[in-house]
Amino acid sequence: MRSLIKHHAGPELQLTDRPKPKPGPREVLIRVKKVGICGTDRHIWEWDAWAAGRIPVGIITGHEFVGIIEEVGSAVTNYKPGLRVSAEGHITAWKDFNSRTGNAHIASDTKIIGIDRDGCFAEYVCVPEENVWPVHASIPDKVAAVLDPLGNAVHTVMAANVSAKSVLVTGTGIIGLMSITVAKAAGASRIFATDIDPRRRALAKKLGAVEAFDPRDNAWINQVRKDCRGEGVDVLLEMSGAEPALAQGFEALRNGGTAALLGLFKGPIKFDINKLVIFKGCTVLGINGRKMFETWYQMEELLLSGRLELEDIITHEVPLEDFKKGHGLMISGEGIKVVMSVG
Amino acid sequence: MRSLIKHHAGPELQLTDRPKPKPGPREVLIRVKKVGICGTDRHIWEWDAWAAGRIPVGIITGHEFVGIIEEVGSAVTNYKPGLRVSAEGHITAWKDFNSRTGNAHIASDTKIIGIDRDGCFAEYVCVPEENVWPVHASIPDKVAAVLDPLGNAVHTVMAANVSAKSVLVTGTGIIGLMSITVAKAAGASRIFATDIDPRRRALAKKLGAVEAFDPRDNAWINQVRKDCRGEGVDVLLEMSGAEPALAQGFEALRNGGTAALLGLFKGPIKFDINKLVIFKGCTVLGINGRKMFETWYQMEELLLSGRLELEDIITHEVPLEDFKKGHGLMISGEGIKVVMSVG
Amino acid sequence: MRSLIKHHAGPELQLTDRPKPKPGPREVLIRVKKVGICGTDRHIWEWDAWAAGRIPVGIITGHEFVGIIEEVGSAVTNYKPGLRVSAEGHITAWKDFNSRTGNAHIASDTKIIGIDRDGCFAEYVCVPEENVWPVHASIPDKVAAVLDPLGNAVHTVMAANVSAKSVLVTGTGIIGLMSITVAKAAGASRIFATDIDPRRRALAKKLGAVEAFDPRDNAWINQVRKDCRGEGVDVLLEMSGAEPALAQGFEALRNGGTAALLGLFKGPIKFDINKLVIFKGCTVLGINGRKMFETWYQMEELLLSGRLELEDIITHEVPLEDFKKGHGLMISGEGIKVVMSVG
Amino acid sequence: MRSLIKHHAGPELQLTDRPKPKPGPREVLIRVKKVGICGTDRHIWEWDAWAAGRIPVGIITGHEFVGIIEEVGSAVTNYKPGLRVSAEGHITAWKDFNSRTGNAHIASDTKIIGIDRDGCFAEYVCVPEENVWPVHASIPDKVAAVLDPLGNAVHTVMAANVSAKSVLVTGTGIIGLMSITVAKAAGASRIFATDIDPRRRALAKKLGAVEAFDPRDNAWINQVRKDCRGEGVDVLLEMSGAEPALAQGFEALRNGGTAALLGLFKGPIKFDINKLVIFKGCTVLGINGRKMFETWYQMEELLLSGRLELEDIITHEVPLEDFKKGHGLMISGEGIKVVMSVG
Repeated sequence: MRSLIKHHAGPELQLTDRPKPKPGPREVLIRVKKVGICGTDRHIWEWDAWAAGRIPVGIITGHEFVGIIEEVGSAVTNYKPGLRVSAEGHITAWKDFNSRTGNAHIASDTKIIGIDRDGCFAEYVCVPEENVWPVHASIPDKVAAVLDPLGNAVHTVMAANVSAKSVLVTGTGIIGLMSITVAKAAGASRIFATDIDPRRRALAKKLGAVEAFDPRDNAWINQVRKDCRGEGVDVLLEMSGAEPALAQGFEALRNGGTAALLGLFKGPIKFDINKLVIFKGCTVLGINGRKMFETWYQMEELLLSGRLELEDIITHEVPLEDFKKGHGLMISGEGIKVVMSVG
Repeated sequence: MRSLIKHHAGPELQLTDRPKPKPGPREVLIRVKKVGICGTDRHIWEWDAWAAGRIPVGIITGHEFVGIIEEVGSAVTNYKPGLRVSAEGHITAWKDFNSRTGNAHIASDTKIIGIDRDGCFAEYVCVPEENVWPVHASIPDKVAAVLDPLGNAVHTVMAANVSAKSVLVTGTGIIGLMSITVAKAAGASRIFATDIDPRRRALAKKLGAVEAFDPRDNAWINQVRKDCRGEGVDVLLEMSGAEPALAQGFEALRNGGTAALLGLFKGPIKFDINKLVIFKGCTVLGINGRKMFETWYQMEELLLSGRLELEDIITHEVPLEDFKKGHGLMISGEGIKVVMSVG
Repeated sequence: MRSLIKHHAGPELQLTDRPKPKPGPREVLIRVKKVGICGTDRHIWEWDAWAAGRIPVGIITGHEFVGIIEEVGSAVTNYKPGLRVSAEGHITAWKDFNSRTGNAHIASDTKIIGIDRDGCFAEYVCVPEENVWPVHASIPDKVAAVLDPLGNAVHTVMAANVSAKSVLVTGTGIIGLMSITVAKAAGASRIFATDIDPRRRALAKKLGAVEAFDPRDNAWINQVRKDCRGEGVDVLLEMSGAEPALAQGFEALRNGGTAALLGLFKGPIKFDINKLVIFKGCTVLGINGRKMFETWYQMEELLLSGRLELEDIITHEVPLEDFKKGHGLMISGEGIKVVMSVG
Repeated sequence: MRSLIKHHAGPELQLTDRPKPKPGPREVLIRVKKVGICGTDRHIWEWDAWAAGRIPVGIITGHEFVGIIEEVGSAVTNYKPGLRVSAEGHITAWKDFNSRTGNAHIASDTKIIGIDRDGCFAEYVCVPEENVWPVHASIPDKVAAVLDPLGNAVHTVMAANVSAKSVLVTGTGIIGLMSITVAKAAGASRIFATDIDPRRRALAKKLGAVEAFDPRDNAWINQVRKDCRGEGVDVLLEMSGAEPALAQGFEALRNGGTAALLGLFKGPIKFDINKLVIFKGCTVLGINGRKMFETWYQMEELLLSGRLELEDIITHEVPLEDFKKGHGLMISGEGIKVVMSVG
């Protein structure tokens, strides 16, 4: 089968032929239709320090996809061939505390497809039965291919509980932008955003932000506080991974507010935790992956509401063969979410 | 001052003259601009058993209003004359457990304006400083006059947490209808409604319900369950106070769902609590009044979102002098929410 | 293997020989050491209407046990022979909403061992891998045999959140008594209990209740309210399934309190839901089974705390062969929890 | 009246005479019986940078006390002379978001007695009516004098929700030690503690910690993780304000755990927020003061439970005249909580 692999310990990927995999007893084999290129795939493409330390050379990359079940393992009980599905890419043995209490997304033994084992940038992919997510008929393939990153946004927004609240999104990368349309659909009353890129700010407003600020000038913080009863926003969604954005975000947050942190920082940060967290009496939530599978159900409901605007976020669609173009569009920033068609 | 009073132990009200009240040391005197007629006012108008047992003859009725602070008592610290305000009608001494822990709406010593003491169907009304709610400049008087019942809807919806969830509203009276637009604004993904009145069902759909059913035919329950993964809605908002509606609502609720009950029943009900609550593992919330003042803040945010559609709910506006017409419109069902202009 | 079966559609059970079962690909075979006799087993023994309508004749009964894994199915990944385990008796396919979101205890497709399929009153029992619970080395077999009913108590107590709260337990049957020691260990500040049986009341006080009342005289309600700031207890744990106890319990509950309902009623009840739930602003929780597996982890922690007092609750231990005596002790009320030794 | 004041911009306090204050219309005048010396009072005594920047010279210090209401202002409605009371020292106008929603402890306009206005190290103190806390008859004066710091511990413990959970307390100063007995009484299953002082570690174990470690050797982290299913504790209570303790605490916390932070750090910290918060999916709670008045009610319940062990924490009691000795005992570490008798 055609497969996009990390063929050597260095940049780029290579399209090659691999044998079609055979599902284990508890796995399903999925014929891939469409895949999404993630920011993580950029790290793998560019072979940065994180990728070099984590990614096994030879692996098929990719973890966002939609496809059709082609075959099921001998001990699979819930699914049959022919079903259109996506899948959660975090694989666990379902034996630790978090796996057994509804929080498998933070299991201590997590392996991720396309990172720790073969992924979905190929004609076929195998995942455990437990990871399968049947896709509602009303959701088009293009959207179904990116439920994984959309799920990051949904997880962050729902963890922070934005209903009837004012919300600040710091950083409008792919997931930051998704968070804006998700937060609006989930009932946020007013959404503010920050980003240094004027095109992203314009898109943030199109997706539902009442204001989008250039964070290089601190003045926006006072404006947001003033607009929010002089006290600050109820919720901060940190999507930038930028240290100054984090401090600004907490400045703009009211006492007793909630901050959900998804963006990853370059390393340890310097943080005035007395002033920004303790005196304020804030709640800070570390967000990782997507809840398995509460987030997926919430995402389905939000998609069924018809209120998610993803047209301007999924900007490009290319065939798998044009993977260099696809990764390039994403890396250059010309594209936002880029989808590749496989089968 | 012109005042609408319960002048004898029997039906109707009388417009009469009363002395302008003087605020106590911790009270404010408010010049009333507009008032809303509540379903409770209908009970008082019709002098039913509840009213006869609770309402002191001679009282000025009415508890929904907006006005301007005219004078403040000697020990008032937070407000000054000239401010446009509404007020929470539940008055407590702020000394019991609930009052001191953010749940003053269920204080054990609650007195209500227009029910236990003089209300707002008059040119002036006095309320304790703690009950004052400054009205945001963007909210028109007509809406500001009905924040009390809108607050019932907001309290119910927010207690049930509808964000990214499917919701069933049983009963589309005034607050049931308000709950639909509130639930949609607060992020409910899909809203179903039931009512025996076809006009109310049509309005429910206009306000955001995806379906509105006549509950006299049970078949709708299976349809709702089917539409919701074959399991049922996530949330039930019981707004009818009708015993069969309650049972139907719980039938349509999924295992582990949340039911928020606002509608009052005619008396004790017969209830299959094993089947409808215990086996299902449901959460049932008794809803009374509005949280003081979390609900009011949430309501302000929802109004600022621009997503609440109240035009079709506030159907009539009449001068105080036309109080008979106003009450008649509400009682006949020709009107939904009727507002009276006072000053 | 020796097996206790419902050999005909009528009262009692019969000890007989059955072939040792073979685990399916995803099941484990457990050699049973000790089992507990549940109140449900009494219904099966007595063959009441519920049992006649639910229990397949020929089934091996029993669902509370501890044993040793003897063999694992071909697709089992997490367990190996030799491990001492108990198991959750609720079996689901892990495909509905609740199963996939941490609430498998209220799955829509639940089958229960010893009720819908062969149970543990035998030398061997098979359960799906997902249902296995490894037992901490510090927990003796006698206690490990009754984790299922103890889990009912833990689930109820933890759902209601009793930490630093006053608690009322209505009904001190097996699980009611367990709830008292669990609530105390989980941080309840003061526990009140009601039961018509003076021996049970005495035991309730021994286990940690500050007072135990005979509910046939209503006067206790005012005393409890007076002891709790004149307002009532923070939490009601309804363990009796008696209609008057439910009403009394809600009377004794403060406004805004939480009621967790585990006891099953004989049929639909008459309930003043306005007065007892809506006006009070209460939260009512339907409790079914045990959370899979949050409750089991909480139970392990509570057992590790050393604060659970189960000595006076597990009153008798008999060999499987004395099953008539064992069931008799439980049914007569002479025993509370009766354990049978199998292997 | 005898008053302990900060008489000049420098170390120490001075006992002097001041006129007996007159309560404002909404204030009560309290005759002080006993007071506690807080860690904050040490900063004021030593006149460090924080104190020099915040404390007005001439102020009466002290904010922990119990006394008897002597006189009430003209507009006071809920209290009468003769009542034994303590008081919340955080004063707010009750007009911002947090004050009006049950979170007055993080109001944006907070003033603190003994810090921003005259405190309780005197024969009399005035506080607003809303700040009064009637003391339960069963609580001795010595304990009633220190409800403020005990409330810090209760707030931290209850915010983190320790019921049936394993807990780590990093730092066993006054509030850290109080947290141990509070966490045990509130239902923590197992408590681990760290402190560099062996006497404090010994006391931690006496109060209920199963282990108390010297944090200078990292090995304890693995032991705690091992004792907690190999995953880590459920809850971290950070009481040290030491940067390495914070990092260690998060290392010892399981994925998805909750960290409540009360200890104040010397300044901005360096923090690996990716590893310790985001990847772990943790919840971090900033803790400030005590909830007004949810914490006070919880504290009363915990005291009524009889499970709080404060004898070894309130180590010394001296007359007000011996304030130099009293402050010295606290500052030297010879004493833990020192109480001064005033009237």
